[in-house]
Amino acid sequence: MISFGGGLPAPDVFPVQRFQEACHKVLTEHAAAALQYGETEGYRPLRELLANNMARYGIKAKPENVLITSGSQQALDLIGKLFINRGDRVLVEAPTYLGALQAFNVYGAEYESVPIDENGLRTDLLEQPLRSGPRFMYVLPNFQNPAGTTLSEARRHELVLLADRYGIPIIEDDPYGQLRYEGEHLPSLVVLDRENLRRDEGYSIGNVIYLSTFSKTLAPGLRLGWIVAPPEVISKLAQLKQGADLHTSTFTQFVAYEVARDGFLDKHVKLIRQIYRERRDVMLQSLEELFPPAVTWTHPQGGLFLWVTLPEGLDMKAVFKSALEQNVAFVPGDSFYAHDGHNNGFVEGSRHMRLNFSNPAPAEIREGIRRLSIALKSHLPASTLSSELALDMR
Amino acid sequence: MISFGGGLPAPDVFPVQRFQEACHKVLTEHAAAALQYGETEGYRPLRELLANNMARYGIKAKPENVLITSGSQQALDLIGKLFINRGDRVLVEAPTYLGALQAFNVYGAEYESVPIDENGLRTDLLEQPLRSGPRFMYVLPNFQNPAGTTLSEARRHELVLLADRYGIPIIEDDPYGQLRYEGEHLPSLVVLDRENLRRDEGYSIGNVIYLSTFSKTLAPGLRLGWIVAPPEVISKLAQLKQGADLHTSTFTQFVAYEVARDGFLDKHVKLIRQIYRERRDVMLQSLEELFPPAVTWTHPQGGLFLWVTLPEGLDMKAVFKSALEQNVAFVPGDSFYAHDGHNNGFVEGSRHMRLNFSNPAPAEIREGIRRLSIALKSHLPASTLSSELALDMR
Repeated sequence: MISFGGGLPAPDVFPVQRFQEACHKVLTEHAAAALQYGETEGYRPLRELLANNMARYGIKAKPENVLITSGSQQALDLIGKLFINRGDRVLVEAPTYLGALQAFNVYGAEYESVPIDENGLRTDLLEQPLRSGPRFMYVLPNFQNPAGTTLSEARRHELVLLADRYGIPIIEDDPYGQLRYEGEHLPSLVVLDRENLRRDEGYSIGNVIYLSTFSKTLAPGLRLGWIVAPPEVISKLAQLKQGADLHTSTFTQFVAYEVARDGFLDKHVKLIRQIYRERRDVMLQSLEELFPPAVTWTHPQGGLFLWVTLPEGLDMKAVFKSALEQNVAFVPGDSFYAHDGHNNGFVEGSRHMRLNFSNPAPAEIREGIRRLSIALKSHLPASTLSSELALDMR
Repeated sequence: MISFGGGLPAPDVFPVQRFQEACHKVLTEHAAAALQYGETEGYRPLRELLANNMARYGIKAKPENVLITSGSQQALDLIGKLFINRGDRVLVEAPTYLGALQAFNVYGAEYESVPIDENGLRTDLLEQPLRSGPRFMYVLPNFQNPAGTTLSEARRHELVLLADRYGIPIIEDDPYGQLRYEGEHLPSLVVLDRENLRRDEGYSIGNVIYLSTFSKTLAPGLRLGWIVAPPEVISKLAQLKQGADLHTSTFTQFVAYEVARDGFLDKHVKLIRQIYRERRDVMLQSLEELFPPAVTWTHPQGGLFLWVTLPEGLDMKAVFKSALEQNVAFVPGDSFYAHDGHNNGFVEGSRHMRLNFSNPAPAEIREGIRRLSIALKSHLPASTLSSELALDMR
């Protein structure tokens, strides 16, 4: 079975030797602290390292603005706990990250879904849902999960201005921001919010709560993420975190700090970019060569996923079944929508599949796309296949 | 400053060398899995190891009955999430573990408090609060936090029968059960529930959800706890856990498994017992020698804490301040009550202090109790001091 299903990093990029050295050092020099209970807010040197790293992307944060979480999934849970009362509305992209919906659902969230296109969230459709008074907007601007799309710079400006005008906080989820394979880094919403709205020069942050994680740059098995927010929000979230798990593992925090420090994280991210860029390119090329012309897909500038759109009228369940018969797996797109049917005047169909290209090796990607194309073609009318491909099928 | 305040294990008992070997082995042999995403329910070999360990205490559990949590604090949070709707009642001991109240408060719990005495929860006072239909009872039968008391065997039987009769589930929190310094192990509620009520011989467990942790036997910095429950409850809790943090760190789970396996955990627990027993004894002896006769305290058979009761009429805030002036700290007892005032006909006063004896070294314990006795005596009327001690004060 070749799986394009999960969102797993490639295990070959885990910096195992560096982890060995880090564990050895932590247990030799800091065992008493690293194995003991720690501060709810997180290990301070790690928060300082994160603040310094983020400064290079223009995010002005002090350690007081940072809360270490047990993966960014916990960040979503704590945000749900803090903001959502049963029946409150949350504005999300359509499609959006399934795990966010799971986290918010527990607190009884209702949703306003706003569609995306190749340039990310359709800011031209935002005003009406903003007027409905959602508690916050949840947005993935970079290489979105599941669609792989990136919010354009113009829309980023528009988004922070609209959020400010309607007084709706933005949750900016940025797990993949550093994994860009082409084009220039675009400023984060948390940065634009401060610059465009001339927030004070202190560390109050502003209307945006920013989330990120080590899951895609070091290792997901650490379960280490973080929240950047104004100190008074961090303080409320820390109180909730104390009730939820006291604090994130001190041991993994000490180890991550030792792994990441002295510029290692940057060097390592460069390596990951190189490896994942190649995988993305192999997937794009294989799709181009093997998929029927009636099928389209996004061109992600980074991240782990791309998003395939099938012609209307296909039975996705049947396609999924055929794919499994061909020993290849993907995630059908309908999991990533807050609504099954109509919302804000657009139909969320089940014409999509999410494909992950970070986990399988290049040769597997090529073979998996070949198998998937066979599965697909068996469901497409001959007229939608190119003559050459139609020939293949006989 | 000598602190009897926290609930910290002694760092000198952390098995650092064993952790070194375990980290090395995990990263040499299992890096690809240990640094990757894992199953929400937890690393299966660790769940098997726990099931085998618990079997020796009569707890019949299969891996399917075990959910690994990010410390047992997360177990409390997930239980709150699953069971409590705003306004629901939860039956707790008075006093009880502060962290449980914090976890349940978030979900809007109201409380029924039932007092404890030297033999634990007053089961003779249970019927009326059970009739009020609490969602569950939260009980710490062994060496309770904060009071250090242990639920007697007779009351254990009574408790499971009452819980069954009224159909109220029991949450049995057992972080310290293995740390017994005198007397015989008493059967867990989860065991008595099965035996007394002739539950089936499968692994359905029954009316009791059992919680434990590695925080007091290996290291709290791992943040590793677990829940034992019927498979259908585990499945619901796992779904909530997925939304809360996807899963607990795979890396710490692999490391804990390598540390604990091959009987190491048992040997290590014996060492901890020996060290903490000595500290408890030093504290008990120092109290006997130095505290005024009007003050009483519990005699814990295990665990980390004892509970001091002061004569009525003292101003605990003033005592606390005097203690800090003497460079000694403790936790005032009123933090451990769900209610400030009257509840079920008994008054929860602020006459108590919780003292921790696991973290400070024996010499510090002796010196700390000396300082605390000075602080106390400055607030007690001369008549309550023994002649000899009164002499000391001049």
